[in-house]
Parts: sequence; structure tokens; C-alpha cells
Amino acid sequence: MLAIDTRRSVRRGRNKAEASSAVRPISPGMFGGRYRPLSQSEMERIHALVLQLLADLGLSQVTPSLEARAVAAGCHVDDAGRLRFPRALVEDVIARTRRKFTLHGIDPAHDIEIAAGRVHTGTGGAAPTIMDFHSGKYRESTVADLYDIARLVDRMDNIHWYHRSVVARDTNTILDLDINTTYACLSGTTKSIAVSYTDSASVRAVIPMLDAVAGGEGKFRERPFCTAVCCHVVPPMRFATESCDALEAAVEAGMPILLVAAGQAGATAPAALAGAVAQACAEVLAGLVLCNIIDPNCRGIFATWPFVSDLRTGAMSGGSGEQALLSAACAQMAGFYDLPNSVPAGMTDSKLPDMQAGGEKGYTISLAAHAGASMIHECAGMQGSLMGTSFESYVLDNDLIGAILRTVKGIEVSEDTLSFDVIRDVVLGEGHYLGHPQTFARMKTDYLYPGIADRRSISAWEDAGARDARDVARDKVQKILGEHYPSHIAEDVDRKLRDNFNIILPRTRMFAGNGTW
Amino acid sequence: MLAIDTRRSVRRGRNKAEASSAVRPISPGMFGGRYRPLSQSEMERIHALVLQLLADLGLSQVTPSLEARAVAAGCHVDDAGRLRFPRALVEDVIARTRRKFTLHGIDPAHDIEIAAGRVHTGTGGAAPTIMDFHSGKYRESTVADLYDIARLVDRMDNIHWYHRSVVARDTNTILDLDINTTYACLSGTTKSIAVSYTDSASVRAVIPMLDAVAGGEGKFRERPFCTAVCCHVVPPMRFATESCDALEAAVEAGMPILLVAAGQAGATAPAALAGAVAQACAEVLAGLVLCNIIDPNCRGIFATWPFVSDLRTGAMSGGSGEQALLSAACAQMAGFYDLPNSVPAGMTDSKLPDMQAGGEKGYTISLAAHAGASMIHECAGMQGSLMGTSFESYVLDNDLIGAILRTVKGIEVSEDTLSFDVIRDVVLGEGHYLGHPQTFARMKTDYLYPGIADRRSISAWEDAGARDARDVARDKVQKILGEHYPSHIAEDVDRKLRDNFNIILPRTRMFAGNGTW
Repeated sequence: MLAIDTRRSVRRGRNKAEASSAVRPISPGMFGGRYRPLSQSEMERIHALVLQLLADLGLSQVTPSLEARAVAAGCHVDDAGRLRFPRALVEDVIARTRRKFTLHGIDPAHDIEIAAGRVHTGTGGAAPTIMDFHSGKYRESTVADLYDIARLVDRMDNIHWYHRSVVARDTNTILDLDINTTYACLSGTTKSIAVSYTDSASVRAVIPMLDAVAGGEGKFRERPFCTAVCCHVVPPMRFATESCDALEAAVEAGMPILLVAAGQAGATAPAALAGAVAQACAEVLAGLVLCNIIDPNCRGIFATWPFVSDLRTGAMSGGSGEQALLSAACAQMAGFYDLPNSVPAGMTDSKLPDMQAGGEKGYTISLAAHAGASMIHECAGMQGSLMGTSFESYVLDNDLIGAILRTVKGIEVSEDTLSFDVIRDVVLGEGHYLGHPQTFARMKTDYLYPGIADRRSISAWEDAGARDARDVARDKVQKILGEHYPSHIAEDVDRKLRDNFNIILPRTRMFAGNGTW
Repeated sequence: MLAIDTRRSVRRGRNKAEASSAVRPISPGMFGGRYRPLSQSEMERIHALVLQLLADLGLSQVTPSLEARAVAAGCHVDDAGRLRFPRALVEDVIARTRRKFTLHGIDPAHDIEIAAGRVHTGTGGAAPTIMDFHSGKYRESTVADLYDIARLVDRMDNIHWYHRSVVARDTNTILDLDINTTYACLSGTTKSIAVSYTDSASVRAVIPMLDAVAGGEGKFRERPFCTAVCCHVVPPMRFATESCDALEAAVEAGMPILLVAAGQAGATAPAALAGAVAQACAEVLAGLVLCNIIDPNCRGIFATWPFVSDLRTGAMSGGSGEQALLSAACAQMAGFYDLPNSVPAGMTDSKLPDMQAGGEKGYTISLAAHAGASMIHECAGMQGSLMGTSFESYVLDNDLIGAILRTVKGIEVSEDTLSFDVIRDVVLGEGHYLGHPQTFARMKTDYLYPGIADRRSISAWEDAGARDARDVARDKVQKILGEHYPSHIAEDVDRKLRDNFNIILPRTRMFAGNGTW
């Protein structure tokens, strides 16, 4: 039994997509790439260093299983035990790996096509804390938070997937964490989800859960709607042993793999930004080669996530100008390689959804988007350089991302938009464009109207209570979380999951009127 | 007698500029242009429409004086009384007008070079209201506000000029408004200033004041540190008669002229963005042709400022994605023409320095900057789509602009930044870059540290009071405005100004301890 009627949803999805591309000013997967922080020759120089790093330095601490596969494919292990990647092998993998694939939603209406240059935005992260909605104070995040954020994201048009953004601190073992994270994401949204699996046992454990939601054994593989986030390296240039095991298991299970290299410039990556970009590219490509060796049809995502250190303190700064540059340059390098990719943006250093948060999110997300990132992760909800999250931010960021995606859509230059006749008619006629047919026609196709941003006059805004954006967002959070309890997992499927897994989230928490919101 | 020792200041300015380019991560006039919303052929199509609009439609309501000059230069007036600009004349003016010039500060240390592609950021606007610092409520803006904002701007590194941002509502006549605005700007900052003169009488009236501050009769013309903001058109395609008189007077006085065409897409410019860009370019070029006819050495600034209407209400939306696109595309067109230019950005629709304001400022300013605008106006301090301003925002925006300018600086790709050896040494050695000489070397040259943005951990921030960015900015506003009273206008000069002009701002208001702050 299918938890979801796939065919009807596909049809609905297609109709929705067609309708939206006809009338909506923005849609998922628009083409970015008009911002090019690096010149062609600069990208080629970076690429030359990437190949040199993989061939002449390599990565340490590969697992025995992956070492055997890699050596069989042409790699070799040097005297220091480092796995070296011949240039030709790396270039072959870049040439033959998947250039695009469908990132499936749980509901096919949320399927998106991941390819270089096609811009999408969504969540990500592993924040250990959340700003409690009611008290406004940071506290440890829980499974229930994961579920609530999923429900919120489910209603946000410009958040194209839900990759778990907080760590469920109310679990006791890695296995319980991974099972409950997967369950909370699955049950709170019908968008594509992702979980960070650091252990192959976790991957193997959740496959039956994913199959059950997909409609039966083997069904998940047909439409893999859960991505494995794999931090397969510990920068600089070292494999993360357990994550490599998880990677191997996830590729074998047919999961899309987010191949994350998260060095920190000045600490675990060079302080010189160009070097940090090159190291990240090399580290991710090392993972991509391994994935392709395991399965040439793998769905690998080139996730160069070099972060920034504030060199005064060593602390991460997610909202800095340097971070915006690193992410944009990495998106451009992924375009150079023509690979489905991900970069981080929107990781404000601010602990509140305030002016600092808005500014830092505004320029980091827009530069990543215009550089053509296929997936912008951490793009909604994050606070405190990924150390926290807040409910209000998902709603606020969704609104901001919409406006940024409108800029990605760009300016249509055509006979129709340039028409001399329209201007002449207005200038020699009424003297204004308010009533012109072109104005009416363009109103819906070219102009995006925000859900939160306040455009009223100062006096109208004062008369309505002079509220700030955060306050307005709180209303929306409360409304959605009070009423939106997705029911795409049928009751019998859910019962089976609860029979077979140690599910912490009470079933009673999953219906309106449970007293929490 | 010079109010300022120019030679010493020039020397200090040059030394400062040299020092800063050596060590500081950002400086005024860095090269933008890596974001190109329009393709080359799209720019050529827009340009073709621009020439067609000027030649085949022209502008109405030119003044008799400018009409006579323009006809003598090759324009003609059609049967409907519209001034038509032959293509060859327009192209000649584009080819021969100044490609760059110095926008002088009152203190030469603040001189900047205005040319296509070299990015600068500063204030602008004509807000009729200000959020009172003490009550937090909007009220009518005054001469004292103009002076206080000038003092604040004087201390903000990333606000490169002070173009008056509010209207002094406590003046009774146009002449008093213009005189007092000029005086308040002049006395509150040593940066370059600008005032919107809508009347030739105002221009002629303030020249003796500008000369007095410059050091004597005829001295202002040698270093014209006050720009005339000229809204010389009433879009669509109509000259603003009185502003054209002011333009003529200002060019004759040697003032830089900000040639502003501020149509509103959907109301006074086409709703189709490409058409709005073309109309703005045509309207500004009409003004630039006239300026060049008056004086081939004029300092004209191509200020295409098409605004956006929210087509549901007709109200302006300064923070929209469409606005970001219009400004970026106009900056790119100015680059196409290779003209010193200005576009607006940072004009949030929000009435508060909140998350909405930050987000809207973040993406509009960064896209304008990366499109290579030479002057980004309204870039600091504005609220409510230019209808208001707030003291806090100047401080907050200055911080945000710094980070954005850091992204404009870009990524250095060189042997030094790419060095394989650094990565190899770290990977085979200590395993981290924290103590590497490259990290220390790059710390000051490549990394910008904000003044307001909070980068502390969540717990450190909580321990320090869990304040938001606006609250932190308030401290800085209060500190600067309580102590920073510039004294570059000597007392005897000021006395002479007060003898000759109806100066509203009391002299007693211009010293610390006056009880206001």
C-alpha cells in the first residue's frame, strides 16, 4: 500500500509546475550564474591545485573497504598511508558522474531537479539549541522541535526541502538519534528530507522505515526522498572513518549523498580564501570519486561548505563577507565542473531574527544564489553561526528568500518588455502607466508580493500597531503550528513504525489541539 | 583664509589611502561588475530603445533657455513642443563626457574618484519623517536632524558621502530650506555633501556659503564638495522646469550634478522592468546632454533611479526584488556607457531597523554593488521606502555595507593564496592552520571585523544581556552624537555665515554638552 498516491501527486505536481511557470514570478530551479566572483582563468588555477592536492597529497584514514575499492579503480596508497587520486581518474569521474537528478519529495509535487546553475533553497544544519518560541530563551533542541520545524517548512514555498536543522538532544544513542530524526522529518513534511548519518548501522536501520513510508520493501530506492548528509572528511584532507562507512551504506541503498567538506578557513582550511576553496573542492571530489566507484549511478551532491573563522577568536563566522565569497566561489567551481552542488548561506552570526540577521542572510544568500548554487543549505532558520535556530526565522527567511529568488529570475528583455509603443502611448496619452494593459499583464508575472515584509505607509503601519517583522512572523508560526499536522503517513503505517522502532515523539503530539501550540 | 588646510589634508588623505590599500580589507572605489543581470545583447537592445526614445519621442517642457542651447547644439523641437535628441548627438555626448572625476570631500581626505565600476556607498533621500531617537516614534524631520545625521555619517567609514537624507520641515520657504540644509550638511561633516536644489535662486544663494567654507570667493569651484541633486525630469519623458533652471545654474557654478530620473515602474515608468530601465536611461541622458551643452567639462552623474510600485496599491516598494533588479541593471547600463553613475539601494520598506530591513538592505545593496554602481545612494539610514529615517540605521547599515564591500573586494587568486606548500605543510604537520604564518598574514588583509554585528557564542551573548543589533547600535549613536561636534568651519567663518544667511540651527546646538544628546 502506498502511503501516497504517487501518480495523482505527479500529475498534480506537473500541473502545478506548469501553472506556476506560466504565472508565478518565481519557481524552484531557476537559472543563476550571473554573478561570477572568479574569472575563467582563476577557476582553472584553482582546479589545477585541486588535482594536485588529490594526486600529490591525497587523504589519510580511508576505511579498509573503500581503500580496496579505490585501489582497484586506480588509486594508490602512499608510504604515509594516504589515499592518492590520479588526475585522470578524478577527471574521468567529473566527466561521467550524474550531471543532474531528481531530488524526490515524499510527495512528488515537491520533486526538484538538481543540476549546476539551477537554484534551490532549503534548510540544513545541526544546531544543538533552539530559541524557545514561548520563553524566547535558548534551550536544547528536541525531537518535537524537529517535527515542528518540519511542519513549518512544509508550508513555506521557498524552502524547497527539509534537511534536519537541529539535533534531537532528547535521544540517548546515535541509533536512536538517527531513527527519531528520520521519523520526525518524515512525519512533519512531504518535502524531500535529509538526515546526517554518521554510522552505517543507522543507514541500514532506517531503510525499512523509508520503505514503509514509500509504500513497501524496495520502494524507497525507486524514489529516494531522503538524502544522507555525509561529512565524509575531517579537514584538512583526512577521511572521517565512520562517515565513510555510512557513505558506503547510503550509496548502496540508493540514497542521494550530500558530500560535505566543512573546513574552517584559518583553522582547518587555509586562511587564504582561494586555498580554502581548492581544499574544499579536493575533499568533496575525493568523496565523489568513492561514491562513483561504489555505484556509477550514485546521486552525489558536491557540497563544498568551507566556513570562516573569526581570526581574532577562532570562532566560526557564518554571516561574514568572507563566508559569502567562499560560498559563491564554491558554487561557481561546481558550475565549472557542471556538478549538482550545495553551498551554505544564510548562517547569520546573530542570535536573534534582527537587523543583523536580515543583513547577513540577505547578502550571503543572494550572492550564493546568483553564483548559481543548485542547493543553498542552512538557508532558512539558522541563528548564531549554526549553533541555534528559531521558529520565527523560518517564516522570515522564507519571505526574504522569495525576494532573492525574484532577483534570480532576472529581467526579461524582449520586444514586449521593451516596447517603444507602450511608452509613446503613455507619454503622449494619459501620462502614467497605472491603467495600461501592460501594467495589468505584468502585475502577476513579474512582481512578487511578500507574505511578511510590511510595505504599508508609516502611518498605516503605526495605526496597525507598529509591529516589527519578527512579531508578525510569530503570528504565522503560531497559526501554522497550531493547525498544520500533515497526515501523509497512514495510521497503520505509523503504527508499524512505532512497533518496530523506538519512536520518542508521542502519537498524541501529532494532532491539532495537543495543547503545545 | 582656508577653513581647512587643503595641502596637509591631501597629504594625509593620500597617506591614509596608501596605508589602507596596503592593509585594510576594504577601501572606497573597489571594482565591482562581477554580477551582470543583463547580457551584452540585452544591453544593446535597451540602448537601441534609449536612442529611439530620445530621437523619436523626446521630452516635453524644456525651459526656453535650455531649449535655445539645445537647438543650437543640434536638437530640434517637434510640433508637439517636445525636445528631440538626434542619435548622433546623444552618442557624441556619451563618448566625450567625463568618464571620471573627483567627488571632493570638504576635507580632501574624503575625496573619492567617481567612475563606472568603482563602487562607493552613501546616503541620499528626502525623507519627511524621522524616528525620534528617544521616543521611538516617527515625527517630522528638522534642520537639527540633518545636522545630527551629518555628524553621525562623519564617523561611519563605509558611508562615503553625506547627501541630505531628510527634509528640514522646520523651514518656511524653499530658499530657507535649501540654505539651512546646505548649512547643516556643511557643518556636520567633512565628507562630500549634496543638496537637492529645485530652484536656480537657491543655487545662486548658497554659492557664497560654499565659497566661505572653501576659503574665499571662487574657491568652491576649485574643489566643488557640494553636489546638486537635480530631479531634472518628471517621468515619463518630461522635463521638470524649475529643476532645469537649477541644473543650469549648478553646472555654471561648477557643481557636480546628480541627474536623477526617478520614475516608478507601473506608475510613471513601464511595469515591464526592461522598459523602465530604458526610460530611465533616456531621461538621464537627456539631462546629461544638456549639462554637456552648458559645459563640456561638467561633472554629470548618470543617476538612473527607477523605483518600483507595489501594483496592488500603487505604493512604492524600495525593498522589493524588482527594485534590486532595476538598480543593478541600471548600474550595468551605466557601465555599458562607461559613465560615472548612481543607483538607489538599501531602501527598505520596513519602518524599523528589523529583520525585514536587514534582509532588504542586504540583497539590494549587494546586487547594486556587484553590478558595479559607482555611487549607491539611499544606502544607509532609510526606512519606510524613503519616507522615513532612523539614527540607528546609519550605524547598522554602515556595518552591513562594510561586509558587502568585503564581498566586492573579492577573492585573491595567486600563487600565494593557492599555495600547495601551505596545505601540504599543515596536512603533514600540525593538522591545523591556526598557527601558520599565512593565517597571521591574512588576518588583517583579508578579513573584515564588524563593529556592530555580534559574533559571540550564544552563551556569551546571553551573559552580556542578549541584546539585539538595534539596541547595540543605539549605544553607538548616543556616544557619537554626544561627543562628535566637527569644528572644521572656523568660528569667524561661521559668524559671517550667520550674519549673511537665515541660519536656524542655534550655534549653541553645535557643541558637546548642549543637553540634546
